[in-house]
Amino acid sequence: MHTAGDVRVEDREDPRIIEPTDAVIRLTATCVCGSDLWPYRGIEPADHQVMGHEYVGVVEEIGADVRKVKVGDFVVGSFVISDNTCEICQAGYQSKCVHASFVAQTIGTQSEKARIPYADGTLVPTPRQPDPELVPSLLAASDVLGTGWFAAVAAEAGPSKTVAVVGDGAVGLMAVLAAKQLGAERIIAMSRHPERQKLALEYGATDIVTERGDEGVAKIKELTNGLGAQSVIEAVGTQESTMQAIGATRGGGHVGYVGVNYDVKIPGIDLFFAGIHLHGGPAPVRRFLPELIQLIWDRKIDPGKVFDLTLPLEQAAEGYKAMDERRAIKVLLTI
Amino acid sequence: MHTAGDVRVEDREDPRIIEPTDAVIRLTATCVCGSDLWPYRGIEPADHQVMGHEYVGVVEEIGADVRKVKVGDFVVGSFVISDNTCEICQAGYQSKCVHASFVAQTIGTQSEKARIPYADGTLVPTPRQPDPELVPSLLAASDVLGTGWFAAVAAEAGPSKTVAVVGDGAVGLMAVLAAKQLGAERIIAMSRHPERQKLALEYGATDIVTERGDEGVAKIKELTNGLGAQSVIEAVGTQESTMQAIGATRGGGHVGYVGVNYDVKIPGIDLFFAGIHLHGGPAPVRRFLPELIQLIWDRKIDPGKVFDLTLPLEQAAEGYKAMDERRAIKVLLTI
Repeated sequence: MHTAGDVRVEDREDPRIIEPTDAVIRLTATCVCGSDLWPYRGIEPADHQVMGHEYVGVVEEIGADVRKVKVGDFVVGSFVISDNTCEICQAGYQSKCVHASFVAQTIGTQSEKARIPYADGTLVPTPRQPDPELVPSLLAASDVLGTGWFAAVAAEAGPSKTVAVVGDGAVGLMAVLAAKQLGAERIIAMSRHPERQKLALEYGATDIVTERGDEGVAKIKELTNGLGAQSVIEAVGTQESTMQAIGATRGGGHVGYVGVNYDVKIPGIDLFFAGIHLHGGPAPVRRFLPELIQLIWDRKIDPGKVFDLTLPLEQAAEGYKAMDERRAIKVLLTI
Repeated sequence: MHTAGDVRVEDREDPRIIEPTDAVIRLTATCVCGSDLWPYRGIEPADHQVMGHEYVGVVEEIGADVRKVKVGDFVVGSFVISDNTCEICQAGYQSKCVHASFVAQTIGTQSEKARIPYADGTLVPTPRQPDPELVPSLLAASDVLGTGWFAAVAAEAGPSKTVAVVGDGAVGLMAVLAAKQLGAERIIAMSRHPERQKLALEYGATDIVTERGDEGVAKIKELTNGLGAQSVIEAVGTQESTMQAIGATRGGGHVGYVGVNYDVKIPGIDLFFAGIHLHGGPAPVRRFLPELIQLIWDRKIDPGKVFDLTLPLEQAAEGYKAMDERRAIKVLLTI
C-alpha cells in the first residue's frame, strides 16, 4: 500500500531463512481483512508498506531449529507470531507471547511467499494436503474465524446463554458460527444488510436486530426480559458499537471484543455501573487452531462461505475496493 | 451534607415501614466511606442530602411480607438494596438486581435508624448477637470488606497467582486481606504511606511498591519476570490508577476494579492491545456476606482493624475531615 487507497502488486525480493526458528512458506491463498481497510481509508497511516496477515500455504524451507513443521507440510498460521512455549502462550494468550510480533505491515502475507518466525510455535500443519474446497475455510481460521471464535469464548457464549453479536462483517458472522458451535441457546445478530443477515441465519443466528446504538440496546433488552444478553460480542470497534455492546449486556454478563479503532474512549463511569466483564484484544488464534482445523477437516463447520469474492493476487486492488464499498464481505486472493 | 465540605448531624423524622418487604433497623455502628469524600470534595454534587451506606444494627420492625429477618436480629446489609431472588441476583450480581437501589444519598445510614427495602434480600442476620469486639469487622463487611473481596474475586486472585493492589485506602487493604484468604502466592501492595504499608503487610502483602503510574507499572513488571501480574486490583478510580492497573496486568490476566470517578476515560486501543480481562463495578456484597460473616464470627479475619478512628455519630463532621486529610484510613461512627 503506497498510501491510503493505493494498493499495488509489486515484485519484492524472495524471503529467506534468517533465524534458525524461521520457515519460508509458499502461500496457497490469502485475503483482505477488515483491519486492512483502516490504512486503506486513511484512518491509520499507510506509507509504502507490505500488507496482509492471513495465510495458508506449503512449507518450502525451514531453519535448523524447526522441529514440528516439515518441508511440504500444508500449514495454517496465526496473524500474530508466537513461540507457543512461554508462560503467556501456555496460558493461552499467544497474541501476547513474549516473542509476539504482528504479521501485518511487517511480513505482509498478501504475497507469494512469506518468512514466518517461530515456525514451530506459529504454524499448525493440517493432517494431510487439504482438498481444494477446504482451502477457504482453512484460510478463514488464520484470523477471521479464530478471531470470531475467541470473541465468542471471551463473551462466554455457551449453553443456556443468549448471545448478541454487534457487527455483521466477516468476524461478526464467524462469531455467530462460533456461538452456535459453543452451544448458545439464542443468537441475536445485529445487522441491517439482507445478504449478511442471510449468512448469519445460515451460521446459526436465531434473531436479527436492525436497530443500532441506544435503539439497538433497547431492542436487545426487549428480547431478553429487560435484562440484556448474558454474552455480547463486539466485532466493529467504533465508539457507538462499543457502547452498544456494553449497554446490551446484563449485569454480571460478558462482552468479548475484537473490534477496535483509535478513537474509542470508554467512559469509566458507564463501564463501572454496567457491572459487566470485558475481555478481548488481538485474538490468540493459535490457541484455537488445532480445534478449528479439525472441525473444518471433519466438515463440521464451513467458515469459508464468508468469502464472497475470489480474485487472483494480481487484482488485490480491486479486492480492497470491493470491501471498502461493502460490495464484498471478504475477499479471497488466490496465488 | 448541606454542600461540599459541610456535614451536619440533624434530627430527621423516624423511618417507618412503607412497603411490606421493608424492615426498620436501629443502627449499632456506621462509618464514612471513601466514596463519601467525592461529594465532600465537590467532585460530585452535594445538596442537603442524607449520607452513609454502610451499616450494622438490630431489626426493630418488619413489614408483613418479611420472612427471613426477625425483630431483634443483628443484621449486616449491603450498600445496594437487592431482592436476592431475581435472575441477576441468583447469578451473583445483586448490585444489578432488577430492584436494585443505592443506600447512599437515598436512605443514608449515617443515622440512628434506617428503613431497609427488600429486607429479606438485603439483610443477613448474624448467628447470634455479636460480641462488641466483632462489630467493627461486621460493619466492614457491609461495604469495604465486601468490595475488596469482590475486587479480589473479579481479579481472579488465587493459588499460584501474583496479585498487585493499586490503592492503599481501606478497600485496597481489604483486597489484600481477600487475596491472602483466596490463597494468592504473592501480594504486591502499591502504597507510599508507612502506616498503610504496615497494615497491608499485616493483612498478607508480601511486597510493597511505592512507585506510581508508569514507574509503578515498570516496577510490577520487574517483580514479575517482565510479564506483569496475573491479577491486579484497582481500588482508587482515577485515570492514572486505572491505567496503572491495566498496564501492570499481563496478557490474559485479570483486573478487578472497584474504584471509580467521573473523569476516567479508558482508551479503547490501549485496552485492546493489553489483551486482559476487566471486571468490576459496584460490588455485589450480598453474594459474599454469609461467607464473610462466618469468617469474622470464627475470628479467621479481622477486617475491623481498618478503622483507625472511632467517633460518636454526633462528630461525623470531624470524621469526614480526618478522612479527607488522610489522617484516618477509615472512621467508625458509634451510635
